[in-house]
Amino acid sequence: MKILVDTLGADKGYKEIVNGALKALENHKDLSITFIGDKNEIEEVVSENSNRIDYIDTKEYIKNDEEPALAIRRNKKSSLHLGFKALNGEDYDGLISCGSTGALLAGATLITKRLQSISRAALTIVFPTEKKPCVLLDAGANMDCTPELLAQFALMGSVYSQGVLNINNPEVGLLSVGTEEGKGDKLRKDTYELLKESNLNFQGNVEARDLLSGNSDVIVTDGFSGNVLLKSTEGTAITIMGRLKKGILGSFKAKIGALLLKDVLKDIKDMLDYNEYGAAPLLGVKKAVFKAHGSSNSRAIETGIDAMVKFIENDIISKIENELEKKENEQ
Amino acid sequence: MKILVDTLGADKGYKEIVNGALKALENHKDLSITFIGDKNEIEEVVSENSNRIDYIDTKEYIKNDEEPALAIRRNKKSSLHLGFKALNGEDYDGLISCGSTGALLAGATLITKRLQSISRAALTIVFPTEKKPCVLLDAGANMDCTPELLAQFALMGSVYSQGVLNINNPEVGLLSVGTEEGKGDKLRKDTYELLKESNLNFQGNVEARDLLSGNSDVIVTDGFSGNVLLKSTEGTAITIMGRLKKGILGSFKAKIGALLLKDVLKDIKDMLDYNEYGAAPLLGVKKAVFKAHGSSNSRAIETGIDAMVKFIENDIISKIENELEKKENEQ
Repeated sequence: MKILVDTLGADKGYKEIVNGALKALENHKDLSITFIGDKNEIEEVVSENSNRIDYIDTKEYIKNDEEPALAIRRNKKSSLHLGFKALNGEDYDGLISCGSTGALLAGATLITKRLQSISRAALTIVFPTEKKPCVLLDAGANMDCTPELLAQFALMGSVYSQGVLNINNPEVGLLSVGTEEGKGDKLRKDTYELLKESNLNFQGNVEARDLLSGNSDVIVTDGFSGNVLLKSTEGTAITIMGRLKKGILGSFKAKIGALLLKDVLKDIKDMLDYNEYGAAPLLGVKKAVFKAHGSSNSRAIETGIDAMVKFIENDIISKIENELEKKENEQ
Repeated sequence: MKILVDTLGADKGYKEIVNGALKALENHKDLSITFIGDKNEIEEVVSENSNRIDYIDTKEYIKNDEEPALAIRRNKKSSLHLGFKALNGEDYDGLISCGSTGALLAGATLITKRLQSISRAALTIVFPTEKKPCVLLDAGANMDCTPELLAQFALMGSVYSQGVLNINNPEVGLLSVGTEEGKGDKLRKDTYELLKESNLNFQGNVEARDLLSGNSDVIVTDGFSGNVLLKSTEGTAITIMGRLKKGILGSFKAKIGALLLKDVLKDIKDMLDYNEYGAAPLLGVKKAVFKAHGSSNSRAIETGIDAMVKFIENDIISKIENELEKKENEQ
């Protein structure tokens, strides 16, 4: 198995990326990695020669404020353009990047291309919850969605949950403003009808407050509200933990208290640790394309590549294709 | 000033409502209250006679699972039907209820009626943040929105922030998936244009993760994503605080730690305390109509009535009408 790792455009710099990837190489003996980035710099971190490591040498990358589709087409020396071109070759099975989400989506769509009968690729986040990881899609790739699109997302999320997270017959929930049928806007009501008729294990509407409770395996929504859900959860957690930290540092008494509460605080921090779920696949394209958080540390890259290896080994893309075909034959 | 207090349909029962209202009567010497509910039961809590207290006697109320518009029209003995009918009289300035949001919205729209040129009433939540309260609308009353509707919400929220929360020239943010202009779905892009052209102090797009940071005075969005934002923030806070509590109770060491951290934990609890902001006004109708949380305690009812008194004293409804008129004259 051979994958491409984009080392450019990461908030914490290329070293975290390279170190995370080296860890993943240790975890998976049949994995080979091609680093895209400044070869001289990366080689210093890699230190020893290995026939499982290769390079695509470039210093250019697409910035967050560039128009993604334009940038991916025009900047032919950018890490993502070079990466997606390489990914089109038979050698490679996947690509992971911390760079611009928009450019990753544009590259995946324009260069790697979507699966037949998939109209849009979905950014798929695996969310830590109280019980088990939950798959949320779309987390921000598609702003204006149709019911048909959400039904495709549900199918892809379900295959991912089963194939990568080992969930048997995953429960699929539709994000809405109340659990009763008929709650929500027109998009939700129409999607509800489609999901009810589908072969998925559809559990009906779920509310945003239930995300962390872990009662769903897959939660489906449009990219706008998915992004709102994701960011508000993240923002609330950061605010509460920040306030706690500030308070703890504010007095000697509180510091001792925190010391005694260490295990409890660590347990909460672990539950909220996005680094343990590493990276988000773009479901619906022809190869494995994973988006890692802009501020990923080496642990996030390692777990991101771990998920990607499982994704490739379990042939999730063929499984999605098969399910789509089945669905079309039924109609 | 005379207001109606619906005591039925509350999760914690009528006693919390009545006790909260009695506190508010102490706070505001020129306030009179008419309780709607079981007169015999309420009189037991009130204990002493007062010419500032009156009753509308009924035991019926609209349940959460009833079709709101139908129920409010048909059940003429329900607390909300009776309340809204009374509110139409000149005697009354406002109504507050913990009951079904849908029925409250339906009653406000069908019986109290909307202000001229307002196409929909908006549920307006005052959100506790790190710095100062932030007004979020629409929090779930209107599912499918247009840019014109969101622009009306922005205007109403701005008047509320100025008049009730004493914010001078409130900063209005549009909820989106990124801060740059052009981010978001079609609704956001079109609303951005309208707000840019308006006389409001428009600060551009804001992200869901910034809600609790308190950098906006007013955040505008459609009722679907507003509800998602609200409930995910609530859900995340409940999950984290619940985990903390469970951990603290789990060991003697942790209990001592929590004791030493008492002030810090109380500070966080206070920041997240929705009871301090009591109730949410339905902006855009002809009288003050406030929705209190279903599980309100007496403190929430007291602060809810406090906000309502301020709303009536500062004549927020006339101010909204004036701003709407100004806007129409400009066009």
